Parts: sequence; C-alpha cells; structure tokens
Amino acid sequence: MKKIQAGVLGATGMVGQNYIRLLENHPWFEVTYVAASSQSAGKSYQDAVRGRWLMDSDIPENVKTLIVNDANMTEQAKGNCQFVFSAVDGDKETIKKIENSYAAADIPVVSNNSAHRWTVDVPILIPEINPEHLDIIRDQQGHYGWNKGFIVVKPNCSIQSYMIPLYALMKKGYAPTRIIVTTEQALSGAGYPGVASLDILDNIIPYITGEAEKTEKEPCKVFGKISEGKIIPYDGLTISATCTRVNVQDGHTSIVNLEFGDKKPSLEEIIDIWTNFRALPQEYELPSAPVHPILYRQEENRPQPKKDRNMEKGMAVSVGRLRKCNVLDYKFVGLSHNTVRGAAGGGILSAELLNVLHYLE
Amino acid sequence: MKKIQAGVLGATGMVGQNYIRLLENHPWFEVTYVAASSQSAGKSYQDAVRGRWLMDSDIPENVKTLIVNDANMTEQAKGNCQFVFSAVDGDKETIKKIENSYAAADIPVVSNNSAHRWTVDVPILIPEINPEHLDIIRDQQGHYGWNKGFIVVKPNCSIQSYMIPLYALMKKGYAPTRIIVTTEQALSGAGYPGVASLDILDNIIPYITGEAEKTEKEPCKVFGKISEGKIIPYDGLTISATCTRVNVQDGHTSIVNLEFGDKKPSLEEIIDIWTNFRALPQEYELPSAPVHPILYRQEENRPQPKKDRNMEKGMAVSVGRLRKCNVLDYKFVGLSHNTVRGAAGGGILSAELLNVLHYLE
Amino acid sequence: MKKIQAGVLGATGMVGQNYIRLLENHPWFEVTYVAASSQSAGKSYQDAVRGRWLMDSDIPENVKTLIVNDANMTEQAKGNCQFVFSAVDGDKETIKKIENSYAAADIPVVSNNSAHRWTVDVPILIPEINPEHLDIIRDQQGHYGWNKGFIVVKPNCSIQSYMIPLYALMKKGYAPTRIIVTTEQALSGAGYPGVASLDILDNIIPYITGEAEKTEKEPCKVFGKISEGKIIPYDGLTISATCTRVNVQDGHTSIVNLEFGDKKPSLEEIIDIWTNFRALPQEYELPSAPVHPILYRQEENRPQPKKDRNMEKGMAVSVGRLRKCNVLDYKFVGLSHNTVRGAAGGGILSAELLNVLHYLE
Amino acid sequence: MKKIQAGVLGATGMVGQNYIRLLENHPWFEVTYVAASSQSAGKSYQDAVRGRWLMDSDIPENVKTLIVNDANMTEQAKGNCQFVFSAVDGDKETIKKIENSYAAADIPVVSNNSAHRWTVDVPILIPEINPEHLDIIRDQQGHYGWNKGFIVVKPNCSIQSYMIPLYALMKKGYAPTRIIVTTEQALSGAGYPGVASLDILDNIIPYITGEAEKTEKEPCKVFGKISEGKIIPYDGLTISATCTRVNVQDGHTSIVNLEFGDKKPSLEEIIDIWTNFRALPQEYELPSAPVHPILYRQEENRPQPKKDRNMEKGMAVSVGRLRKCNVLDYKFVGLSHNTVRGAAGGGILSAELLNVLHYLE
Repeated sequence: MKKIQAGVLGATGMVGQNYIRLLENHPWFEVTYVAASSQSAGKSYQDAVRGRWLMDSDIPENVKTLIVNDANMTEQAKGNCQFVFSAVDGDKETIKKIENSYAAADIPVVSNNSAHRWTVDVPILIPEINPEHLDIIRDQQGHYGWNKGFIVVKPNCSIQSYMIPLYALMKKGYAPTRIIVTTEQALSGAGYPGVASLDILDNIIPYITGEAEKTEKEPCKVFGKISEGKIIPYDGLTISATCTRVNVQDGHTSIVNLEFGDKKPSLEEIIDIWTNFRALPQEYELPSAPVHPILYRQEENRPQPKKDRNMEKGMAVSVGRLRKCNVLDYKFVGLSHNTVRGAAGGGILSAELLNVLHYLE
Repeated sequence: MKKIQAGVLGATGMVGQNYIRLLENHPWFEVTYVAASSQSAGKSYQDAVRGRWLMDSDIPENVKTLIVNDANMTEQAKGNCQFVFSAVDGDKETIKKIENSYAAADIPVVSNNSAHRWTVDVPILIPEINPEHLDIIRDQQGHYGWNKGFIVVKPNCSIQSYMIPLYALMKKGYAPTRIIVTTEQALSGAGYPGVASLDILDNIIPYITGEAEKTEKEPCKVFGKISEGKIIPYDGLTISATCTRVNVQDGHTSIVNLEFGDKKPSLEEIIDIWTNFRALPQEYELPSAPVHPILYRQEENRPQPKKDRNMEKGMAVSVGRLRKCNVLDYKFVGLSHNTVRGAAGGGILSAELLNVLHYLE
Repeated sequence: MKKIQAGVLGATGMVGQNYIRLLENHPWFEVTYVAASSQSAGKSYQDAVRGRWLMDSDIPENVKTLIVNDANMTEQAKGNCQFVFSAVDGDKETIKKIENSYAAADIPVVSNNSAHRWTVDVPILIPEINPEHLDIIRDQQGHYGWNKGFIVVKPNCSIQSYMIPLYALMKKGYAPTRIIVTTEQALSGAGYPGVASLDILDNIIPYITGEAEKTEKEPCKVFGKISEGKIIPYDGLTISATCTRVNVQDGHTSIVNLEFGDKKPSLEEIIDIWTNFRALPQEYELPSAPVHPILYRQEENRPQPKKDRNMEKGMAVSVGRLRKCNVLDYKFVGLSHNTVRGAAGGGILSAELLNVLHYLE
Repeated sequence: MKKIQAGVLGATGMVGQNYIRLLENHPWFEVTYVAASSQSAGKSYQDAVRGRWLMDSDIPENVKTLIVNDANMTEQAKGNCQFVFSAVDGDKETIKKIENSYAAADIPVVSNNSAHRWTVDVPILIPEINPEHLDIIRDQQGHYGWNKGFIVVKPNCSIQSYMIPLYALMKKGYAPTRIIVTTEQALSGAGYPGVASLDILDNIIPYITGEAEKTEKEPCKVFGKISEGKIIPYDGLTISATCTRVNVQDGHTSIVNLEFGDKKPSLEEIIDIWTNFRALPQEYELPSAPVHPILYRQEENRPQPKKDRNMEKGMAVSVGRLRKCNVLDYKFVGLSHNTVRGAAGGGILSAELLNVLHYLE
C-alpha cells in the first residue's frame, strides 16, 4: 500500500519534532513535506534543527535531508503532501491565515494550535469523544468555499487527562455538572526553550498564561452539538481550574473533584465504566489508538508522570485515587502524556480517524 | 537576662536539627539538653549527627559538644532544661508515653508530633489563631495530675499555608463553610532520608500517607471551642483535600477553592483583611513572630516556594492568585515554609507565646 | 526454537527488575525462575515487588505470577532454569557463597555483583573486549570441582563509558598509558531507595563509596591475560578517578584525559577507529549487541545522558568532545546507560555470548 | 560616616540584581544609580525588573524607586555615583566602550565582564591573591588619559573554586606546574533565562561555550607580574579544563588533579596551609571578606554546593577530598558560590579593597 504523504508545518519546533519522531515508520503516513519560518526555509531539515533537536532518538533518515519550506508559501505544499499537521508558531491571526491558505489549497489541516479552536465551524476533536463533530467539515468547506481542504483542531493539552474519563461517564448516563480541577503540568507543555531552569529548579509555578481559561472553556465545545452549521458548546458542565507548572519533563497531572446531577454512579461503577470504555478509534483499530483508552491504577500513589505517561505508547489516559469528596461527590487523579496524546500523538490519531472516514481522499 | 533552658527531643532528626539551627542566638531560649534514641545516647551531638547533618549552616558551637541523652530517660532532663521541644520519632503510643513522662516531670512539652493531636485536652496551637486554647492547660494538668508540666502540639505542616488566611476572614465575620484544597508539598516534609530521589526526579507523587485525613480534620480542632475540659472541634467547615508531593526542597503550596455561608466578602475586602491581619504574637512582638503574618503577592505567578518561603524568616504565609471560582466562591494559592512555620519555627513561636503568658515559669 | 530458561537472583531489586524488563520477549531466553531474600520467598513476584516496582512499563505477564524462591535455596532452581543472572544483595562472603552454590548445582551464573570480581579465575567480561577470558571457565570448574556450572561477572558500571573506546584504540596499537577520569554518575547506580532526594536536589555529591577504587582497578583485569589458570591484570595503564553523583536518573558520564605511550594517534584516527569498531558480539549479531558499539557525536555539547543513553537500546557507548589536552595528550567525554549496558543489558549480552559459544549447554 | 555612592550598570540582569541584593545595608556603599539598556531607561527600577526579579528577597526599598538610566549615557552618572559596578550585557566592543566612557568620566569601574580581561593594563583582581596588580591603575590612567577613573575586572566564575587554594600553596613555595580540572557548574552562571529547563532536567551538559578557554588562560594572568605597564601572564602553570553544566542553582564545583614542580608538600602540609591562609582582605577586615578564605571539609563527601556554597556568606572557598592522584601528585574538590564570590560578592570585595587603598577617593 502506498503511504499517504503528510506535511508538518512548524516542523522545527518541539511539537513539530514530535510529529516527525512519531511518524517514523507509521504504517499509513510518511513525512514528505516540512515547513517552518522563513529563516529555516531552504535548509535541509537536519541543518534547520541543528543544536535544537530535542528528541531522545535521532532524526529519521528520510526527514534529515528534506528541504524546509517557508510555511507561508502554500504553493510548495501542493503535490508534495496530501494533508498537513500544523504546529506553526505565531499570533492567532497569522496562524489562521496560514492554516486557511492550506485548506484553500485542497490540503486538509490537522492543527495543534489554539487559533481556530473557537471558530464556530471548526471542530475540537478528541477521536474517542466527538467523531460526529467531523460532520461539520462539509459546512466548513461550504462557508469558506473550500473544495477538499478543511481544518480540524485539537484541544489544549491540559484537559486531556480527564476529558475521556468524564466522557465515559456521560455516555453511561452519569453527567458531571460541576468540577474543580488543579493541574500539575509538565515543562514540555511550554515548548522550547520554554521555562527557564532557574525558575523551576526546587520550585513550582502556580500560574500558566491563558491555561486556566482554556481548561475551563474547551471541554464544553468538545461536548457540544452541531446545530445549523455551528458547534454549540454544552452548557451542562461548569469547570473551575487552577493550572500549575511542576518540574516534570512530560505528563500533565490533574486533580479533579466532581459533582454529578441527579444520577450518581457508585465508585465501583465508575471504575468499571472506565476500565471497559472503548470508542471509535478502538473499533477501527487505528494504528495510534490505545487498546485501553483509560487505565485505572489500583495503587494508592498512582498515576505518576514518570511511571505512567508512556502507557500504551503515551496514548492512554491513566487515572487513579478515585474516592469520595467531602464537598462535591468524588475526586480522582488523571494523567496524560502532553506531547503524545496531548499534542502530536493526538493529532496523528485524529488524522487516522479522518483517513478511515475518507476525509483525506 | 538569663536565658530559659530548652531541650530538644529527637534532636538528631531533621525537625530536631531545624530546632537547633533556629534556636542559635535566640534572645530568650538556649539549647542545654538534647535527647534522641538509645543508639545516639552517650555521644556528643556532633558525633551523633555525623554524616546526616542536613542544615546548610554548621552545627552551633554550644550544641556540638552537648552529650545526647536517651529520650526515654526523663530523669536526665530534670534540672537540665525548663521545657522541651519534642520531635521524637516512633509509633503513636511510644511518643505519647515519652511526652507524658516529661510533662509528669514538670517539664512542659511543645510537640511537633501528631500523637497527641486528638487527645481532647491537648490544644493544637497556631499562636495567631487560638491562643485561648491554652486555657485548657489547667484542665489537662488536673486530668493527668501534672504539676507544672503540660503538652501543647502543633498542627500538620500541610494546613499552615491557608489556616491563618481562613482565620483572618472568619474573625471579620466571613466564615468559609466548604473548601476544596490540593497541596503540592515539599520533600523536607517527609523527613530524612524520606523520599527517594528515583521516585521524585522528573515526577510528582499524588499521594502522601495519612496527609489528606490530617488536612481535612485538624483545622476543625484548631477552630474549636473549649467546653467542659475538652476542645470541641468546629463543625461549620467541611474540607476536601488531595495532597501531592513535588520536587521542591522546602515550602508547601496549597491551591484552595472556598465557599462562604451567608456573608461573602468582596475580593478587595479579602485582600484588605489579609494585608492588615495582626494577632497576639504581633502585639507581643514575639521574637519569631512575623511582622506581617500574611503577605499578599500581587504578581499573577506568585507565591512560589523558592521565592517566597523565606519571607519574614520563613514565618509568614504568602498568598496570591485570589480570584472568582466558577464552582465555589473564590480560589487562591497559599504557601508556607514547612520546616520553619510548619515545624520548628512554629514550635518556637508557640514556646515564645507560652513564655509571655507565664506558662513556662 | 525452545527458549533457554533463565533465573534471576535478587529479582526484586532494581537490577533484578531491569533484567526482568529487558528479558521480556527476548528471542533466546525466558525468565522461569526468580529468587530473592527469604522475606519475599513464597510470594508471587507481583506481590513481592508491590509498591517498589520501579520500571516505567508494567511487570511482564509471565513473570507476575512466578513464585519467588529464597535465593539461598539452590535446590529449587534445579530443573527450573538453565542458568541465572545474579543481582543478589548482601555482604561479599554471602554473595560468593550463594553464587558458588548455584555453580556447584550445574547452574552457570552471570553476575552483576562485585563479590567475585577479584577472584583470580573469575573473568570480568565485557563481550566486545575480552571474550577470550572465557577460556578460564574450564580452569575455574576444575579448581572448584564444578561440572557444568561456572561464574562470570560484569565490571562496575562506572567504567563502561570509556572501556570500549580505550580498547578500540589499544587494538589498533595505540595503548593509553595514563588516564585521569572524573565521572558524573546517575542516581540509579545507587540502587533503590539509594540517594535521598534531599541530598541531591539542587546539589551534586563529589563522592561515591568504593567507586573510585573500582574505577581505577577493574579496567586492568579486563585488559589482563590468562596465565596458569589465573587472570593477570594488565600493568601498562595507570588510572586516577574521582567519582561524583549528579541529579540524573540513568546514564553515567565520564570526562577522560588520556596519555599514550610511544605511538600516538591523530584526532582523526581516533574518531575513525571508534566509528568503525566492531567485535565478536557484532559478528555473531547477538540479539542485544549494538550495531555500533561506539557512537561518536559531532555536536560540541554531546554526549548528554538524557539524549544519548538510549542509543542502540541503551547498549552503545556514546563519546564526543575529543580534543587536545594541555597536560596529557587528549581528552573526551564518554557516556553509557548504567542500568542497561552497565548492568542488566550487559549481563544479558554476556549470556548471549556464552550461549553462542556453547557454555550454556 | 557618609556612605560612598555606588552605581550598578546592567542593574536589571541577574548579576546586577545580585549586586543590588548584596549592597542592601552595606556599611560603606549605597546604591544611588542604576543603569541598563535603553528599553529599561526611564522606568523605576521595580517596574524595569517586574516579572524578572530573581532574588529570594524583595527589592531593597531604596532601590525600588530609583529611575533606571541608559547605560550608554555616562553623563547621567556624574554626580550621582562615585564609582560603578559593571554587569552590562553586550558584545565585547560595546562593553569596552561603555566601561571606558565611565572611566573617562572620572568614575572607576569594577567590572564582572570578560571584555577587558585581556587588556594588558587592566588587572584581573582576586583581592586575596594579586592586590599588587592595582599598581597598574596609574599606568592605565596614563595610557588612556583618564584622571580619576579606571577599570578593574574580575576573573571568570569557573576558576574561583581553586585559585585561592592554589595560590595559598604557591605563596608557601609549593608551585603547581600542571593541573587537570573538570568543573560541574551551576545554572546561575549562565544568567537568566539561561539554560532551558528541558535541557537540564535529568541531564548534564558537558560543554559551556568559551568556558574551558577562560578556565585555562585567566589563572595565568591573575598569577602574572607587572612589567613596563603591562601585566605579563605567569608561564609556570599549564591547565587543561573541561567545563560541564549540572542541575544546581548556585555553586561551581571543580575536581582538580595537580602536579607540583621540584618542591612537593605533604597532604598534611596542604591542609595546614589552606586552613591558615589569610591575606590582605582579612588583614583589613573588609566588610565582605570571609574570616576564613579557605574552609577545608574533613567529611569525605564534601564540599557540596547546597551545603557549602553559603559558608562565610558565600565568600569562602570550600575544599575537600584531598588525596593522592595516581597520575599527577594530588587531587581535590573545590567549591565556590558563583554569583557571590564568583560575581557580585567578589566585585564588592574588590571595591572594598580599592576603597581602603584610597582608589575611590
């Protein structure tokens, strides 16, 4: 089978590097096009990332010698890739403009950026939760006059550690109505160079710019419904978030206190629901889909970033410490690998879903 | 003025070392008696701690050559010290037995241990909050048949970062009724050797044995009332806690979401109340009392352990990030130095209060 | 092909856990026997390591339910495994006794312990360097009256980062005569719980018990010659070592200054020799053998533990920064994964070599 | 006594902040003038450093409201300060130009920068070692046509941990001839933001740009002699250095192997010489001078950055682990606080020496 040609926008940054690492030997996709800022354009990929390749494996051989394109020059992508992953940097309007130009050029865009997250006809996709939001792609193409191109985005990495667990409960009729969440987020979430070592050694930072807002708002769009060509956010859930930075390389942890509405599951039911949760990516056996999307840890001191972030190749969410809460109903701890499930791995899973649903043809 | 002679039980452990460090050059107290386990007994203090002195200043000269006593041998303390700080290790019953034996020998005990925290006639003292609980000392002495001896304990270090801020509000008529707290606690809270480096490097641990329970229960006793020779815990406040360990040397951080009853202050009022809070230790100008017990940080990314734990010589609580909570009323971040305010420094402040109130005579 | 049954002594410790992790899905060996201290004996392996399984993947399914044996009870190993990896703890004499008893029971022992390193007829094996030392096994069996059993040991993990690079030069006629080495060693080298987090956070420790001595002496035995049933250490090399501990999970780094005798290679020759070095494990294509035993990094800031320790599945040595030394001839930086190449992975490679050379039959 | 008015150039950077922190309550000097880049000029100091004040105490009250000047506008310094500490950033020529312009304006400059270190008539001062190099100030003033102004610089922070120990031996007739040094340097040496946390968490970096060269060359100028208006570097000492970065906040460690010429001290003599070493700053009892410039630690695992960097308020050098070297004569470990003794504290001590020697009048 001939592989589908994929491009990576923002290929020299940390998320871009993760895409390139994770796509090495992918059974369906191969990286044939890389683009970045105009400074990198014209260089071979290995020259462009010299001194700032951060992965702990070497650059894949087939990517080393690809010539980096200017991400603004959409023309060069045509014919060289069938869709792109976007991890391009910049202000919101610039990113929108770039991503739109690829979509307009018949090149679907799977984006890690927040720029389009609140565009009403762009879905924030978590493949296990809201695959039906992909129906809006036809509306989106109509609105913009795009032919084959479209834009699908991923949510912020901070919410990945509890969204699938919450959804698994909702699907069984137990809809949480209020949650209070504290996150302990990893350094890689801030990109590179990101957090200065002097700021985080022997320290935590109880603030991450813009993160609490995203954590409080994005889940409602993911849980939303399509109506008249727009995604209408779900209004049954209120979230209060505090996001903190801790001295951990990878893996965002969340401490979640939650309250249900009328119908309340028992502790045993919750664990049972989580353990048995499966969704579309598992049914299709997508290459990057975790067999078990939710892993419940029985040990009282788990999940932990170092020990659990790589479970199911970084694509599973690990949860644990489920117990009664004195104030709301229950509390638990969730963990997700922020640069795999929460970024490049999640983007690849989205593209895999798009492929089996024939959106990339 | 002749200084009051103080003993330190458990003098070779980490809390004991902190007592010895902080009492160097104390204006009122001098360390004249050190006691530890039978293995250390008979050695000079500097020999007993060789290879495990953890402070970043050297052992005070006058303590180096003190001979370590067996903490079980109360007799040796008589005449050698007028009261003791207890940081002795062991199971609950052993600790109670040791502390009781000192009290019985006319030697008041200011204890860091949890053993006596739920003894009905032993006060859990935070000098800024419940000095009136010291009235129970007379009852305690009556119950046990002690003459001059008594026992006063300190609360768990995990609650110190928000208790004074909550109390300051209560005192002004704004009583919180429900709080959800997540703590990010420092390594030194686990003693030495404590947390293995392999467990915490590039990691957090979302569990600390027994800590959530203490965090949920102890505040109610601190806020309690004396009635018929017992301290009756306050029943107006419900707490839900999750305690996590982070890779920080010193300084416990708490993320607090809180709800008030009928009367609710504005954000401005809260900051104003905190900034102007003063209590008995400030009135008496006790040597270890912080001038400002609560420091409100205006910066959006503060308090931070590394930058704020040493404020007011480690005796102030730093708070920040006060803002609306979508689920409860408000949320904020608190920070307190766990081995100073939360342990030895807090014990010394308690002893200073006991002294000005003539309990050590 | 039926797999060879392997046992692991000291299976519950950190090195033992690494053996079990690395032997999962091994093409030649399968773990069928695990032994540890008498406290663990009788428990299932998963019960025995509950709360102290340190690997970042779960316990292999086939090992979870193996019943742990008492490492002292050699009888139980008979018929249950064809050879053992020894990572048993204890004092030197106890370890020797245990290892000897397995050898006496016809069970070859591949040991990680230092106990037998200076036994004159026990080889310290680095498969790429001194496979001819295995000839002494016949002498060893004769001396002790063993039939099929024997003992082969591994060197200390601190020397692995420069031994193969030095040997590659010696083999080409460039024998170093004097080296000064400073090591920056990882936490996992100290076992578990090992280094206390309070000792290493924001710190380095310029001393590791016994490590400098091993680092100075063991290379000479590895480079030695067999003569009259004994391994006579090489006397042409003098080493001065200082071993320090740094806050790194895995990967020992060494800074090496070296001087040659009469014959001195150029910088280019050295890099060329290193890059092209191959030895017996590569010829036999042993399952754990790195394709490139020595990886020379051109980047001026490499090798680094986090980025290079996992190269060739942790079995390659990474070197870099080769340049002139003002005092001796040259200097370079070496790096090796201490729990893979330096411990369990090295042991497995040794067993693979023993197998192809028919010592395990 | 009226205090001498001091300026700080580059006042908003990390070294500048350290100057401001250490000069709070200085008995002789007070900060009356701060200068930085043109972006900061015109703001109050507290506004200029908002969000990047890195010290763990708050900004001194008297400096908070000082208006930051443009470091290029020398005119504004006149009358507002009697001398300046220079920690200004930029390329070598720009720094030289700025520092020269202050000297030309009759304002002596004590500089932390490397720009002027190899200017033949600018002394690299370590007050305990080469105070006689200050004699060249008159030559310098003559060469440039300066009246009261002049420039004195400090050496690189990487050499501070062993220069005074070496000098103490030289002074007693034991001149080292060859040394091999490996440094393990702290993060603060790289300034702010400096080293990215993703680069150093769970890692070491075996390279620091330009550092090995400085470490090998600067000692020879410090040990040099004035001849015909130039400082002629000492040619009796050859140094080979490898500089590595470790995950430590403050405190540079060096592992030193050294060889003497004809005259070789015993281990006991060395310790004795170090312990009793005193020099001009101690004779004058300068405010920042350590009482004991060299502290020899008897413990086999010291000095350690976290435990020893603050000895004598960060101004002492701690040494330990002195023992025989198999290749050269001896080896030892040295430690010095890089932002105190190695930067701002060392600069202040230099200024104190200049003051008692009447150079600031």
